[in-house]
Parts: sequence; C-alpha cells; structure tokens
Amino acid sequence: MKPPLEFYFDFSSPYGYIASRKIEALASKQGRSVNWHPVLLGAVFKITGGRPLPDVPLKGEYSKRDIERSARFHGVPFRMPEPFPVSTVAACRAFYAVKDGIGLSGRFSDKSGPDPQFSVTAVELAKALFRAYFVENVNISDAENVAKVAASVGCDVRAALNDQAVKERTKAEVDSAIAKGVFGSPYIVVDGEPFWGIDRFDQIERWLTAPF
Amino acid sequence: MKPPLEFYFDFSSPYGYIASRKIEALASKQGRSVNWHPVLLGAVFKITGGRPLPDVPLKGEYSKRDIERSARFHGVPFRMPEPFPVSTVAACRAFYAVKDGIGLSGRFSDKSGPDPQFSVTAVELAKALFRAYFVENVNISDAENVAKVAASVGCDVRAALNDQAVKERTKAEVDSAIAKGVFGSPYIVVDGEPFWGIDRFDQIERWLTAPF
Repeated sequence: MKPPLEFYFDFSSPYGYIASRKIEALASKQGRSVNWHPVLLGAVFKITGGRPLPDVPLKGEYSKRDIERSARFHGVPFRMPEPFPVSTVAACRAFYAVKDGIGLSGRFSDKSGPDPQFSVTAVELAKALFRAYFVENVNISDAENVAKVAASVGCDVRAALNDQAVKERTKAEVDSAIAKGVFGSPYIVVDGEPFWGIDRFDQIERWLTAPF
Repeated sequence: MKPPLEFYFDFSSPYGYIASRKIEALASKQGRSVNWHPVLLGAVFKITGGRPLPDVPLKGEYSKRDIERSARFHGVPFRMPEPFPVSTVAACRAFYAVKDGIGLSGRFSDKSGPDPQFSVTAVELAKALFRAYFVENVNISDAENVAKVAASVGCDVRAALNDQAVKERTKAEVDSAIAKGVFGSPYIVVDGEPFWGIDRFDQIERWLTAPF
C-alpha cells in the first residue's frame, strides 16, 4: 500500500473546502488514501504575516469572485458564508477529539484508546463541518453549532471541546503542521512533495502517476 | 472579432513568464488576440501590503520549489535567476517606448506616432526580456542589459529609458492597472472577468468557450 496523501486545511478556508470535495477521488484513482489534518491558519499567519483574504486590498475583492467561480468550475455546492472567515478552534478540537477518542460521550463513550472507526468518523465529521459552514451557512466558530454537527455523525463532543488533552492535541497538530512548512489551505503532501492550493490538483494528479 | 485577452504581468514574475509562454496558444484557439501589459508589482505591493515571494516565511521556501516544478509541469524552459526578484522599471519603460514609438533610435527612428508594427515588436521585446531573465540569467534590472535585449529585436532604447514621456507613460500604465484591480502576476482579464495566476488557465479556457 502506497503512503496516504497528507491533506492540511482550515475549516474556514473555501479552497480547502473545495479540495475536501475532490481529494478522495483524486487519491483513490491512484490507490491512495487521505490523511485529514485540520489546522488553524490564524496561528500560521502570525508567522508568515499573512492575512485573511477579505482583508487584503484588491486581492480581497478578487478572491470573493474567484471563490464562487472556482466552486462552480469544480462543480461543488457552495454558498459564501456570513461571517467569513471565522475561528475554527472548536471545529478543530472536535475533529481531534473524535479522531483520538478523547473526552467523548454518546456513540464512542464505551470505547477508550485508538479505534479504526475513530478516523473514519473524524472524516465524516470534517465533511459535515465543511458542509455546515459552506453550504448551510452555519457559523462553526460557535461551540454549540459544532456540537450539533458532531451529534449528526453520532458524537457528543460538548465536554471534549474544553478537555485539556484535546486542547493540547490540537495545538500539537497545528505546531507540527507549521514545522512541516504548512502555510496555507489546502496544502497537500504527496510522498514528501508539497502542493499548495486546489489549483495544484492537476500537478498532484500527474505526480501520483510519475514525479516530474 | 472578439475582444483581446488583457494580459498583465511583471517581467520579474516567474508565473508571469510561464503564462507568457502559454497565453497566445490559449487565446488563438478561441480566435482571440492578446494585449500585453507589463506592470510594476512593487507599486502594487505598496497598496496590498504584498511582499516578494522569497521574503515570506514558509511560503517563500515553498514557492522556490513550486516555481521550478510549475515550469516543468508546463514544459517551459526555465532557470531560476540570480538575483531574484529584480526591479523591472527599465524593462517596463523599454516596452512602452517601443509600443508607442517614443524616443526610439534605430529600426523605428524614421517613424513617428502609432504604427501597427510597434505593438508587434513590443511583444517580441517582452518575450526577449522574459527569456533573458528566466532562461539566460541576464539581470534585466540593469538598463544596459535591457538596451542589449532591445537591440536584439532591432530597437535602440538607450535614450528612451530616460525620456520623460516614456516615464510618464509607464507610470500611467501601472496606475491604470492598479485602478482596474490588478494585484498580482499574471493577471488576465477576459471580457471583463479577472483571472489571477497561471493556475487559472483551465478556468480561462472554459470561460472563453462559455462563461460559467
């Protein structure tokens, strides 16, 4: 089995969302799976001096247009959310709580320690969070909204969102991503080769067949 | 005749260079021509707070790799120049001097006022400047080097580079581009619709057939 694609994204990133709707088909065509890694771009921007797109003069105006056009181009359901962007700390914590099975009630409350089902459900949750924000206009910076989305995939994350172990795990994931050079969303690593942007999927596709 | 593609770029932009090798084929497939508009990203960055790619933490490291990989992906001859990036004021002035036939000696010294051949030769010059910088590692921030490149397409621009009318024309072009929202390179406007980046050529191609 070849190594999975390492897929880094922020839950508030429209291009990350579009990528999330495309990456599994791209990977599976070449017999690959996908490792999902939500990160916090706010922490990254402190290092790079980056700013949320809407705040950048000229580029901000363009990006609004480009985001909606790119969603249409890729055939992905999309509605520009309000407010945008938002903090995704709660969404990120929920993801890692589910992935690691930390502090959960409900569906997984009878389990402890790693379980293969955790990763599957974490990806389900990631997709549901993206859909909530970018299709249904649900503000996922709100912990209560995150908890509702998690409930829709059978997880009770209410306690987990304030769990110290979950907080530390989330921070460690973000720090590790930054240490690996992740500076934007989506950011995909294929066999050590980094690709930034939904607009590098054409290069990833060729790279998976034969590095160039 | 359908309107031309408006093609904005900086002579020091690697992605602008890659675009310059691809855009005429893209346009002519749909019966379009291309209007070439060199601009000065330095002036744009003063407004957007942008920085040259190599100066941005994390993103700078990535961009070096992405630039060379993108040139290979698109099958374009490329050698990362040193120094990079450079000022392209002289290159820009040479272009507009040739395009408008201002202050020239040599091939066009017997002409005055607009001539269709001027635009053709200006595009030849643009291609020669890009090739000098991104293939032959010639530092095109040096006015003497720009003059040599211009000589290779039959133009003597030595006097033009310090001509007040040429300076003003160049500044007016850059100001006009910024007023139109140009914030990066390449930036292509198709029937009023803006596209930023060599990685939007797939969208441009579809847009030229049918806007979506």
